[in-house]
Amino acid sequence: MERLMKGLEEQLREMGKIVDDALANYLSAKKPKYLYEASRHLPLAGGKRFRPIMAMLSCEAVGGNRLSALPFGIALELIHTFTLIHDDIIDEDDERRGIPSVHARFGESTAIIAGDLLFAKAFDALADLEVEPRILNKIMKELAEMTIQICEGQQMDLSFEGMDTLPEREWIEMIEKKTARLFEGSAMGGAMIGNGSDDEIKALNNYGRNFGIAFQLWDDCLDLIGGEKLGKPIGSDIKKGKRTLMVLHLFATGNERDKREFKSILGDVEAEDGKIGEAIDILNSNGSIDYVRNRALLFSSNAKKSIEKIADSTAKDFLIQLADYAVERDK
Amino acid sequence: MERLMKGLEEQLREMGKIVDDALANYLSAKKPKYLYEASRHLPLAGGKRFRPIMAMLSCEAVGGNRLSALPFGIALELIHTFTLIHDDIIDEDDERRGIPSVHARFGESTAIIAGDLLFAKAFDALADLEVEPRILNKIMKELAEMTIQICEGQQMDLSFEGMDTLPEREWIEMIEKKTARLFEGSAMGGAMIGNGSDDEIKALNNYGRNFGIAFQLWDDCLDLIGGEKLGKPIGSDIKKGKRTLMVLHLFATGNERDKREFKSILGDVEAEDGKIGEAIDILNSNGSIDYVRNRALLFSSNAKKSIEKIADSTAKDFLIQLADYAVERDK
Repeated sequence: MERLMKGLEEQLREMGKIVDDALANYLSAKKPKYLYEASRHLPLAGGKRFRPIMAMLSCEAVGGNRLSALPFGIALELIHTFTLIHDDIIDEDDERRGIPSVHARFGESTAIIAGDLLFAKAFDALADLEVEPRILNKIMKELAEMTIQICEGQQMDLSFEGMDTLPEREWIEMIEKKTARLFEGSAMGGAMIGNGSDDEIKALNNYGRNFGIAFQLWDDCLDLIGGEKLGKPIGSDIKKGKRTLMVLHLFATGNERDKREFKSILGDVEAEDGKIGEAIDILNSNGSIDYVRNRALLFSSNAKKSIEKIADSTAKDFLIQLADYAVERDK
Repeated sequence: MERLMKGLEEQLREMGKIVDDALANYLSAKKPKYLYEASRHLPLAGGKRFRPIMAMLSCEAVGGNRLSALPFGIALELIHTFTLIHDDIIDEDDERRGIPSVHARFGESTAIIAGDLLFAKAFDALADLEVEPRILNKIMKELAEMTIQICEGQQMDLSFEGMDTLPEREWIEMIEKKTARLFEGSAMGGAMIGNGSDDEIKALNNYGRNFGIAFQLWDDCLDLIGGEKLGKPIGSDIKKGKRTLMVLHLFATGNERDKREFKSILGDVEAEDGKIGEAIDILNSNGSIDYVRNRALLFSSNAKKSIEKIADSTAKDFLIQLADYAVERDK
């Protein structure tokens, strides 16, 4: 496992570099200078590039050339980044990947425009995709649909604010839209570009969706246990009062004293480290963090199972390792 | 002329209805309810649908079937509307087309998301375009590029705030990006969908750009002389301190007393009707409104000249009338 993981990290670095270079190319600096600085700020500040990498590996796993999926991958990364920029405005998050968020640095107006520009650039990139027209139309529809669902998920997330009880099913639906749908589309689109069979496309579709849910659940865990590695301070979700699955689990299963204590800290932006530590302890002793971690492991395992029937290949190996990495990474 | 104009208005209503119906179809209400209400609020509140109509007429003018350009027209209208929603947030405009703007009604967060959703829907519509792949790729690039230029223009407009001197050339460049580029793309894209020749595409491209500049200049005039017909109170641009070409003309050519007086009113959101009337009188007596009106007429005339060499047809006639209408309309 250790050896394989090392191989994966090297692979991620290598493919990430290809994405970085192409991205920089699509986002060359133009006038007005201030707008392009704002637009380049987040996408060129690094990132794991999971979505384009998943698209390229999926393409290769069904027999295609991974590079043929690159324009699609760039479109995915641009859409991901543009939604982050607009989300940060909405959530009033002033930090992202350890640097000031776009609106914190360039002001809200320019941040709105910069996000719009990146979204437009996504279709600029997509137009460079060389596939047969039937597939291009499908992928365009798919990319539009993914973004629509991200919007729906973001609105659902907004509407969950302040709620203490919420069925897990509804919460998962929000995550499916807000996070998992883009991964689903990444894997599926990659398979379509690689001319995969209907079965292969369906398998990778399932892989991507399960991966995406696992990824988000683990992200929420990392906020509590991962220190500063996400580029934001530990427990920032608690300070912001975010309804993660851990919080919902505590509210559904915890004792009254714990819930009362936790609620007094949840959403307190001024809460000191000691208080945040207390809140995390409550989630821990209630088994809420373990619960979510186990859910993440289950979805990761489902992701791997989804592609069992796809022919073995190095790309498939990496996809399997990627599903492990999604719930083992520390950043 | 009177008779022709009547024919045009009937034509606009008829084609507008086709656009309205298709638009309602693309924007059917889904969940989350609040987001879809916000997304449908502006696009389904009516509108002149100039852009899709121009695309359809341009398609027909080169021998195509106007309805084949409809999905493209819908994409144009959705992009136009999404930029209005985001612009209204940025400009803090609480009214649009006589109704509350999206953020005024649904809050800023949902307005940002609703705009993003409409932008995504534009590509959803575009994917329904039935043209050969070479043209689809070109049109996708074109649509992305138009939106990028709208973003650039909006940022330029922002950066002009508070400026008293600005070369007309630079101001026109802003308008070319923020307004004219989308009209340019409407006409050009329509011609491409209709399988127009390179010369025809180029001619309609020029038509659209000149039309767009004329359209915007006349819009700025209407803000001063058009009463409540734009769906916003008269002189609202003055209250907001907007640097229109009229204002730049006054600053470049007016006497010191007039300029001092005008500046004391410009940007005063609390200014009463009497004060706004005074400001308009100053622009009038300095010839600044006439100057801009004449510029608008010139661009409109250039638009018509651009398509002189295109074969005569009913569609071409309507395009010519449309260029007149752009600078004669009272709303």
